[in-house]
Amino acid sequence: MTSLMRAEVGQQPDALRRTIDALLPRTADIAKLAAQTRQVLFIARGSSDNAAVYGRYLVESHAGRLATLAAPSIATTYRRRLDLSGVLAVAISQSGKTEEIVETLDWAADCGARTVAVTNGEGSPLAEAAEVALLTRAGDEKAVPATKTYTTQLAALSVLGLGLGADVAEDDLRRVPDEVAGLIEATEASEALPRIVEELAGVPGAVVSGRGIAFGTALELALKIKEACYLHAMGLSYADLLHGPIAVVDAQTPALLVAAGSGPTLSGTIALAERVRGAGAAAYGVGGGPGLAAACSAALPGPGLPEWVAPLGLIVPGQILVENLARRLGLDPDVPRGLNKVTQTT
Amino acid sequence: MTSLMRAEVGQQPDALRRTIDALLPRTADIAKLAAQTRQVLFIARGSSDNAAVYGRYLVESHAGRLATLAAPSIATTYRRRLDLSGVLAVAISQSGKTEEIVETLDWAADCGARTVAVTNGEGSPLAEAAEVALLTRAGDEKAVPATKTYTTQLAALSVLGLGLGADVAEDDLRRVPDEVAGLIEATEASEALPRIVEELAGVPGAVVSGRGIAFGTALELALKIKEACYLHAMGLSYADLLHGPIAVVDAQTPALLVAAGSGPTLSGTIALAERVRGAGAAAYGVGGGPGLAAACSAALPGPGLPEWVAPLGLIVPGQILVENLARRLGLDPDVPRGLNKVTQTT
Repeated sequence: MTSLMRAEVGQQPDALRRTIDALLPRTADIAKLAAQTRQVLFIARGSSDNAAVYGRYLVESHAGRLATLAAPSIATTYRRRLDLSGVLAVAISQSGKTEEIVETLDWAADCGARTVAVTNGEGSPLAEAAEVALLTRAGDEKAVPATKTYTTQLAALSVLGLGLGADVAEDDLRRVPDEVAGLIEATEASEALPRIVEELAGVPGAVVSGRGIAFGTALELALKIKEACYLHAMGLSYADLLHGPIAVVDAQTPALLVAAGSGPTLSGTIALAERVRGAGAAAYGVGGGPGLAAACSAALPGPGLPEWVAPLGLIVPGQILVENLARRLGLDPDVPRGLNKVTQTT
Repeated sequence: MTSLMRAEVGQQPDALRRTIDALLPRTADIAKLAAQTRQVLFIARGSSDNAAVYGRYLVESHAGRLATLAAPSIATTYRRRLDLSGVLAVAISQSGKTEEIVETLDWAADCGARTVAVTNGEGSPLAEAAEVALLTRAGDEKAVPATKTYTTQLAALSVLGLGLGADVAEDDLRRVPDEVAGLIEATEASEALPRIVEELAGVPGAVVSGRGIAFGTALELALKIKEACYLHAMGLSYADLLHGPIAVVDAQTPALLVAAGSGPTLSGTIALAERVRGAGAAAYGVGGGPGLAAACSAALPGPGLPEWVAPLGLIVPGQILVENLARRLGLDPDVPRGLNKVTQTT
C-alpha cells in the first residue's frame, strides 16, 4: 500500500529545487523592502507556524535582527491597532487562503509594517496582499499532512534569511535537494526505522525535543504525530522540557530528539538523550550525527547539511516515520479525522 | 492528607493583596522607563513563560504596544547580538536565580534594551540586574509546582500593563484577592470537581485550550497537569487546536477549556466545546460563565472578574483540580519526579 503522503515526501527534492531556483533571484527584492525595517514579525498557524519558528531562529542567529511571532487574535478578535512601523511582517500559509492569516497581514500593513507572503498559492489572497510574495513551487499537495509545502516554506525562509544578509553560504542551500533525495533512501534503508515504528506503536505518547534552529522541526514532527497518528506528542524546546515536562518521560513515554549534525545546540541535545535514558525512557535520535546516535536507543539518519539549512532535510526522516507509524496503527495517513486541507479559524 | 501545594493555593489571596499593594505605586517608574521604548520583549521559561503569554496579550490588546517572547538561546547558545534599542525587556523568574534568564536580561541590556525584572527573589541576581525590579510578595513557596509565585507574577504583569497605559480600571485589580478567596471555596464546594478528577484519572491525556488573554492560563494548566500528574496534557490555543491536533480529541482524550466570563474570545471557546463534544470527547469548562458551562460536560467555576484580570483567578480552579488529581493518582503533588525548584538550563 502506498499513500499520497509517501508519494509527496518523495516529490520533495524536485519541489525544493524548483523553489530554490525560483526564489534565490528574489533576495534583492527582499533586501530592498527590509532596508526600511529593523525587525521581523512572523504570522502563521499550524505547520506554517513551525516553519516560522525556523525563520525566527535563522533570522536572529544569522541575520542579527529581532524576529518574533505575532498573535493573530490581536488583529482578528481583539481588533487592536499596534505601532508596527519598522516591522517586516512575514505571513506564511500553504494555501494563501486562510482568512485569519490574510486578515492579520492586512492589519499589519495598516499598522505600518512592510509585508512579505510565503505561500504555495499563486494568485491567492495572501500572495496578492503582500508587497513581496515568495511563491513556493511545491505543486499540488493532496494529503492532509503537509510535507512538501512545509519544506518548501523552509526553503523560502532560507532565501528570506539570505535577503536579510545572513552570514551563511548560498551554496549550502543549493545542496539541499540532493541531500534530501539521499536522506529519503537512507531513512527507508535504516534498520532503526521499523524498530522505532514498532516501539512507538505500543505507547500512548511521546515527547519531541530540539533546540534553536532545530526547535521548529521538533514542533513540526510532534504536530505530524498528533494529526496523523493520534498520539499524545508534545513538542518542547530542550530548555522548556527541563522546566517541568521532563516528569512525563518514562518507560511508556519515549523522547524523539532532533538535531543538526553540527552547531551550538548539538551537545545539549546529546546531554538530554543521556538524561532521558537515565530516567528509564527510550530516546530516539533524528539527525545529530554519530554523537547523538551513540547516546540514543536508536536513531534515524539526518542530512549532511550545515545547521542553518539542516531543518530542510531534518523533518524528512520524521515524515517517513509518521507515514509508516500511521499505517502500522491501521490509520490512513492521507486523511486524519477532523481535519481539512484549508483551515479557517473563526 | 493535606499537601504543601494545597496550603500554598490557599495563601494566594494574601499573597496577591501584598503584591498588588506593593506594586501599584510603581506604575510611574514603569511609565518613565517605558517612555523611552516602543515595544515589549518577555524573557522567561516554564510557568514564568506562561505568565509572559498573559503579559503579551494584555500589553497588545489593552496598551497597544507590540509585545512578543524572546528566544533565550540566541543570547546564551548562539551568542548573537541584536539591535534592541526601543525595546523594554521584561524578564520573569520566580527565584530570580535561573542563570539563563539572568544572562538573557544582561544580553538584552547590552543590546540596547531597557530592563524590568518580575521576581519573588528579593536581592536575587535578576532583581539586581534590572533597572526596575517588580518584586512579587508570594512569600516562601515550598511545593515544586508554582502556584502563588505564578499568580503574583500575573499581578505584577497587570501592574506593568497599567504602567504602560492600558485602557483598564485599576479597581478591577484591587478586587482580585477577594475574588480568589471566594473562588477557592466555590471550587472545593463544586460537584464538578470530584467528577472531573475521577474522569481524568482514567485517561492517558487531555487537551487544554484557551484563547487570547486566557491562552497563558491554558498553557499553565497543561504544564501543571504534566508536571504533577504525568498526564499527556497539550496546551493549545483555540486556533492551533483546529489546525491539526483536533484529531487527537476522542473518548479517551477530553478537552479542558478555559475562558474568562466575558470578552471577545468567549463565544469561540463555547463553539469549541460544542465541536469537541461533537467529536465524541468530553469537554470540561474552567470559568467562562453560564454559557461555557452549558456547552460543557462539566465545568468548574471561574472568577467574577473582567477579562483583563481574569487569569489571576482562572488558574486557581485548575490548581485545585491538579492537586486533587495528583493525590487521586497516588502521587505527591509537592515533589514531582525529575524536578527541582530552581531549574538551570545549560
